[in-house]
Amino acid sequence: MSDHGYQGLNHFDAGGAARMVDISGKDDTVRVAVARGEVLMQPGTLELIDRGGVAKGDVLGVARVAGIMAAKETGRLIPMAHPITLTGVNVDFRLQRPGRVQIQARVRTTGKTGVEMEALTAVTVAGLTIYDMCKAVDREMVLGQVRLVHKTGGKSGTFEREGEQIWDT
Amino acid sequence: MSDHGYQGLNHFDAGGAARMVDISGKDDTVRVAVARGEVLMQPGTLELIDRGGVAKGDVLGVARVAGIMAAKETGRLIPMAHPITLTGVNVDFRLQRPGRVQIQARVRTTGKTGVEMEALTAVTVAGLTIYDMCKAVDREMVLGQVRLVHKTGGKSGTFEREGEQIWDT
Amino acid sequence: MSDHGYQGLNHFDAGGAARMVDISGKDDTVRVAVARGEVLMQPGTLELIDRGGVAKGDVLGVARVAGIMAAKETGRLIPMAHPITLTGVNVDFRLQRPGRVQIQARVRTTGKTGVEMEALTAVTVAGLTIYDMCKAVDREMVLGQVRLVHKTGGKSGTFEREGEQIWDT
Amino acid sequence: MSDHGYQGLNHFDAGGAARMVDISGKDDTVRVAVARGEVLMQPGTLELIDRGGVAKGDVLGVARVAGIMAAKETGRLIPMAHPITLTGVNVDFRLQRPGRVQIQARVRTTGKTGVEMEALTAVTVAGLTIYDMCKAVDREMVLGQVRLVHKTGGKSGTFEREGEQIWDT
Amino acid sequence: MSDHGYQGLNHFDAGGAARMVDISGKDDTVRVAVARGEVLMQPGTLELIDRGGVAKGDVLGVARVAGIMAAKETGRLIPMAHPITLTGVNVDFRLQRPGRVQIQARVRTTGKTGVEMEALTAVTVAGLTIYDMCKAVDREMVLGQVRLVHKTGGKSGTFEREGEQIWDT
Amino acid sequence: MSDHGYQGLNHFDAGGAARMVDISGKDDTVRVAVARGEVLMQPGTLELIDRGGVAKGDVLGVARVAGIMAAKETGRLIPMAHPITLTGVNVDFRLQRPGRVQIQARVRTTGKTGVEMEALTAVTVAGLTIYDMCKAVDREMVLGQVRLVHKTGGKSGTFEREGEQIWDT
Repeated sequence: MSDHGYQGLNHFDAGGAARMVDISGKDDTVRVAVARGEVLMQPGTLELIDRGGVAKGDVLGVARVAGIMAAKETGRLIPMAHPITLTGVNVDFRLQRPGRVQIQARVRTTGKTGVEMEALTAVTVAGLTIYDMCKAVDREMVLGQVRLVHKTGGKSGTFEREGEQIWDT
Repeated sequence: MSDHGYQGLNHFDAGGAARMVDISGKDDTVRVAVARGEVLMQPGTLELIDRGGVAKGDVLGVARVAGIMAAKETGRLIPMAHPITLTGVNVDFRLQRPGRVQIQARVRTTGKTGVEMEALTAVTVAGLTIYDMCKAVDREMVLGQVRLVHKTGGKSGTFEREGEQIWDT
Repeated sequence: MSDHGYQGLNHFDAGGAARMVDISGKDDTVRVAVARGEVLMQPGTLELIDRGGVAKGDVLGVARVAGIMAAKETGRLIPMAHPITLTGVNVDFRLQRPGRVQIQARVRTTGKTGVEMEALTAVTVAGLTIYDMCKAVDREMVLGQVRLVHKTGGKSGTFEREGEQIWDT
Repeated sequence: MSDHGYQGLNHFDAGGAARMVDISGKDDTVRVAVARGEVLMQPGTLELIDRGGVAKGDVLGVARVAGIMAAKETGRLIPMAHPITLTGVNVDFRLQRPGRVQIQARVRTTGKTGVEMEALTAVTVAGLTIYDMCKAVDREMVLGQVRLVHKTGGKSGTFEREGEQIWDT
Repeated sequence: MSDHGYQGLNHFDAGGAARMVDISGKDDTVRVAVARGEVLMQPGTLELIDRGGVAKGDVLGVARVAGIMAAKETGRLIPMAHPITLTGVNVDFRLQRPGRVQIQARVRTTGKTGVEMEALTAVTVAGLTIYDMCKAVDREMVLGQVRLVHKTGGKSGTFEREGEQIWDT
Repeated sequence: MSDHGYQGLNHFDAGGAARMVDISGKDDTVRVAVARGEVLMQPGTLELIDRGGVAKGDVLGVARVAGIMAAKETGRLIPMAHPITLTGVNVDFRLQRPGRVQIQARVRTTGKTGVEMEALTAVTVAGLTIYDMCKAVDREMVLGQVRLVHKTGGKSGTFEREGEQIWDT
């Protein structure tokens, strides 16, 4: 029996040492994860973002690219995450007045492990990019509510966060 | 005069194109930024993290390493961020019952631009790592309240988020 | 129907947002791509490269390593490119007097998407490396004619650029 | 005296071994480099790019982000390049009918070595990104004419490519 | 027939050019590799490491994370190594008085090529991290005896280094 | 007073948490570090390496490039290492019959912290690359004796490993 306090946390071995869990025996199946988060800001900041939406280098366009590229970096940022290939990534935004940008990332793969971490990473880096591009006018923005809302594929089955629907994009 | 809606957002040029802002003329000064965030979880998850605290591969130990390493990746994750050297990084945690892990990152540099993004990136990746290591027992954790709480150095002067104190670590 | 001007460009969704295209449903097949490019230089620069060819650290040897390693970075450089595994990469050079180094990269994978971008990236980074190593004597070199010359595997079938033959290496 | 054929190429030592040249003794000065290149394409492809210019995820917007981020990766792609910090990057495009997109990158730093390679890398990765995003409709695009057009700072002084002017952006 | 001296070294083609060997035709099988190495140090340094073992940021805990993360970087560090996905990584340590820390890495994948390099890279980076964290008190540490001790899977069959047993962790 | 067992190890704070040490107050000085290591192999493997020395893609040429590029990755591999710029890197080899390749890396910077880790990383990755390129004929090679032999610059002054001289390259 294990002599440490981590029963249930599979990123630790019987001796309590952190490890990248062995998934060699898992099946290759299509796996999807959707995560969501938000950036709270002053109403004037949201208006700036909205007005820029037709320009050639808009805030949300840059944040979308950052989120998609970050999904590909997940295995390098999260120590025990498996390095995997991805078969699709979407990052979308919704402006909610007076001062909230909602972010959704949907990630897919065909592999042996889920892509929750990839979706969560895409959301947070997209959010941090919005912060970076707007911090000259609003240093008090808050990135929050980063959470998994949907997951399919793999042995653990489908997860749906109660009361949340995936955006129809 | 500028023909786009982004006055005030210095990551865009006069034509509205995204750019990495020119900071060649800025002074090299010591700059510090402190950011904070939190992971909300079930009380049982927090107890697991707390009990593991003396084991050789604990959750928070791994998350701390992830956060410190992520601070060094900031310039590669955030599209318009300047690649910079760092002179110091600390990541700390506080457990708050029943179900909250608070995260603080403090980053320092001697250079031409601030390290807010580095501190915010360290906090979010530390938080995502906690999520990754505990998701087998708690898939509904939420990463939130990621915010800048303190900043010194540079022309824009000192910023203190109202009502927040830097932890004494 | 789509309301944006990008019909045919599959890196955009129906709303015009950039995305990493979903390839989950594609078959795993052997895929090959060959790309080519050239560096134009002064005749004296080409002679320097040629004479160094037997030394232990020759220009083309370094450029070859750079090109092969760059093929592996493609998914991190090109925002909407899928991160994939590669099963083989060759980079070759031909000196053409008076002042042209031709570069060819051949990349293979077994997967769901082609490796055109990997081959093109290998060619360009090999070319930039030649530039870097010779710029002390010739700052006016030009990297050009970077193009796909051959592609097999996948649903879109075989592509052969007219009038070009893959080098027999 | 050196026994190899590389006199003049400073990326080799006296024995002909490749090295990262020692620049410890150089002065920290403001250095600027401007590079340019082009993507040749079918007229219909250029029209697609042009029409998409107001959408939220346009081709050139993504290519600009890719180019700016690639400038920061230069030291990791080019074997003998020095890893440096950058103080500013701009990437711009000009559409030239019937079928040419011109690309210009301007990079600045305050340091001991020039940023030619960073500017050239930004141009090529921006060009490869245009290729990637449009290859579904035009596989025969060619990336070419990648060249340094301007350079200031450092001991070697100012370089201006004859007959070329930096765009006024 | 080949005209160079490298018969047997499959990382070179018939003309002697370095290449990433084509493995497209190989089978996907479960592959395991175990590597080992050691850091020699002063007895007092080993005592410091041992005493810290229950603290929240211990030397070996950080070295383990570094080794696991480095396994994922192997394809980017070793020029001719194939970029692959990994399905599991463990890094373990044994303290041997008076002054030796032994390191073992076990890496698994399901793929077309072995993971020897990943295991060796994990061992060396874990060892270098121990050096980094203790160098303030002991600059004369030596990393040594880095070797493959076990390998299964693939056409070349099982390899067992004589006289060595995999640790039971 | 500190309540953990790590007095003297400056990569831990007073509470025992790992950190990137603050070096903001240190002076920018020229710093040099030289590290050395070796790969032990069968005599036939060394002969293969030696014979290939004039070919266009020789083992040591590739290993040199790998070592130089790895020096630039040090800050990303070693968790508590500071990300720094480098001003020069050399990697050299000496063949010693019957079966030993000696490796030396010399790294320089102008900055606030030493480059021991960069030199040690260059040596180990060069050594691992030799292993990778020769493992098809010799799986029992051993990388060993990786050590710092020389260091100058910074407050701690000059270090010379007893009985070792820097190679004259």
